[in-house]
Amino acid sequence: MINIAFLGYGTVAHGAYNIINKKKSEIKAILGEEVVVKKILKRNTNGVTEDGRDIFTSDYNEILEDGEISLVVEMTGDLKASYEYISQAFKHKKHVVSANKAVVSEYFNELHSLAYENGVSFLYEAAVGGSIPIVTPLMNQVILNKVNRIRGILNGTSNYLLSRMYDDGISYLDVLKDAQDLGYAESDPYDDVEGVDTLRKLAILSTIAFKGVVKNQDILRFGISNIKDVDIKYLKNKNLKIKLMAKSVLKENKFSAVVEPVILNSNDKLYNIDGADNSVEIFGENYSSLVFAGEGAGSLPTGNAIVTDIVDILRGVALKVQTTEKIVCKNQIESEYYVRVPKDFKFNEKVSSEELIGEYKILRTEKIDRNNLLNILSCEDYFIARYEI
Amino acid sequence: MINIAFLGYGTVAHGAYNIINKKKSEIKAILGEEVVVKKILKRNTNGVTEDGRDIFTSDYNEILEDGEISLVVEMTGDLKASYEYISQAFKHKKHVVSANKAVVSEYFNELHSLAYENGVSFLYEAAVGGSIPIVTPLMNQVILNKVNRIRGILNGTSNYLLSRMYDDGISYLDVLKDAQDLGYAESDPYDDVEGVDTLRKLAILSTIAFKGVVKNQDILRFGISNIKDVDIKYLKNKNLKIKLMAKSVLKENKFSAVVEPVILNSNDKLYNIDGADNSVEIFGENYSSLVFAGEGAGSLPTGNAIVTDIVDILRGVALKVQTTEKIVCKNQIESEYYVRVPKDFKFNEKVSSEELIGEYKILRTEKIDRNNLLNILSCEDYFIARYEI
Repeated sequence: MINIAFLGYGTVAHGAYNIINKKKSEIKAILGEEVVVKKILKRNTNGVTEDGRDIFTSDYNEILEDGEISLVVEMTGDLKASYEYISQAFKHKKHVVSANKAVVSEYFNELHSLAYENGVSFLYEAAVGGSIPIVTPLMNQVILNKVNRIRGILNGTSNYLLSRMYDDGISYLDVLKDAQDLGYAESDPYDDVEGVDTLRKLAILSTIAFKGVVKNQDILRFGISNIKDVDIKYLKNKNLKIKLMAKSVLKENKFSAVVEPVILNSNDKLYNIDGADNSVEIFGENYSSLVFAGEGAGSLPTGNAIVTDIVDILRGVALKVQTTEKIVCKNQIESEYYVRVPKDFKFNEKVSSEELIGEYKILRTEKIDRNNLLNILSCEDYFIARYEI
Repeated sequence: MINIAFLGYGTVAHGAYNIINKKKSEIKAILGEEVVVKKILKRNTNGVTEDGRDIFTSDYNEILEDGEISLVVEMTGDLKASYEYISQAFKHKKHVVSANKAVVSEYFNELHSLAYENGVSFLYEAAVGGSIPIVTPLMNQVILNKVNRIRGILNGTSNYLLSRMYDDGISYLDVLKDAQDLGYAESDPYDDVEGVDTLRKLAILSTIAFKGVVKNQDILRFGISNIKDVDIKYLKNKNLKIKLMAKSVLKENKFSAVVEPVILNSNDKLYNIDGADNSVEIFGENYSSLVFAGEGAGSLPTGNAIVTDIVDILRGVALKVQTTEKIVCKNQIESEYYVRVPKDFKFNEKVSSEELIGEYKILRTEKIDRNNLLNILSCEDYFIARYEI
């Protein structure tokens, strides 16, 4: 019997717990032993698990000092607390599986070093892309491939909002309210719609791909909250879609990484990634690209990723991530942009098209530096998106 | 130093050989030892490898009896010969990596049993989907998920032909000739365009997914060689595409599996899998679906899959496939079909639409059994495709 502990018992943890129970014999067939959740760290220790087990504790030391527990699954939200939880677990020679993109992206090198120093493994498939197996496959691909480019749709909430606006022709605020009522969006949607969540996931994927640390603060970030139905309608008429896209590129040890709204045409492999789905495309040395897509969130989908990590670690097959490459942040992004401004706004840069629609002027710039573009837009009521066509 | 041998030295073998040489230090970092191709089985043993090594042999016993060689990579074409090669390798306690979908699908259970009896591993990522990591990920997913449905575009040649017809509006025979001149299609394209290649790949994926053997002869198969530009044009006008699609479904231990032309609308996740790309979608218990896409063939893409298998086996992480489920073939497929027949052909089944276009009549049937449909079509000049909409 292999004992593990959960930190946190929210949606994802319930999914993982149920899969471990349901797939008991399949997991035993692989590992030779049963996996049992022995303790669950939880502030409120009243009650029992859904299968009636009294295993809640509010004292992390009980888990740390339990020599039978060899693996800890961290599924809390708090950044500082989770950093402490994970570090302490490593120091107590326990493997860690995490679903927490904030802590993995913020303390990437610290946590990996600590794991390796203590001879234990650290995996976090559930932190990126929900159900999609991408973190471990990427670790695998970079053995044989220089991966110099990644792009992806990594936030289900914002993708859901954009898809609903496109399909139903309703305004951003109406869709957001609806999504909040349905539980698809948080009451404070900032991290999702302003790209913070996407950015953390991009930091993790880029660091693994480039074999050098890409920090959260190295990534440019622009969200979707300025979008209006006029933008969606204008582009839909041309059969184009907007996606909140993460992208990073490495060239001669200099990287650029950005999260921003991007316009795709109907030939694009990510054009049909709609609703709460996520997708990641990696560009390798031995092939043009690999695309992975699936549900980006949810109890069982993300729980599936967690339990996959648990099985991989306990099978002893977890790979070690290398971050030995010296790479530096460049972040010079030049592209053609879609720009929507008030109709009397004077835009003095070169444009390849310009249309007046109601109160607005919609432009397509020629190639322009992203930062320059921002400096020019002094008006408050604007929306910009990169043409990836 | 870990010694391995290649059987065959064609396009894919060259790709694998080059990757092994180029990634020598990365592979050593993972395995702790260098991997060296010690011998290559080849009919004509004149000449040397591109890096000048005189390692060709035409005598397989030299490889079998070389105790230093622990792994054999089978990349030949011949079905009977490759079965012998692989069986002999297992009996000599050597691991096998194969790129040969014919032999893997035809002798699935025999070869796996022989591998496990001899305590060695058997992987064949390169046999399905070229560069796409799908075979090993599927083995992994079925630990935690009942996978009861799979579909995919698994043949690059036929997908290339259909894409070119769609994009350029030229006839099937013109595109085929062009593809043959460019080396994208074989001089005898039968296996590619009639679905034989796709069928073998579907047999492999279905067997792994359903944990019970799906034999080649259990799969219904219909190709694309009857297609005409009138079909493509008619559907393109409605924004629909045709793909040669593999699909298998398991329900209460009965499976249906078919390879046939399928009509997709523009919302479908596989709609944009164009040219020589491949894609596989698996439907799991813990998530709706996962999609994997990438290049379906080529020297380096397929070589990448081969070397990934070599590294996995030598790392000791190859999974064992279970085929213990008792499943039976049912193959009752009922669907709405696109049917194009000569304009004066009498079609007596229920249809939901009917149009006359030049010399042809184009129908959309109501739900009908696939086999019934074939019995009805006594004319020679017809084309049918399943509506997956």
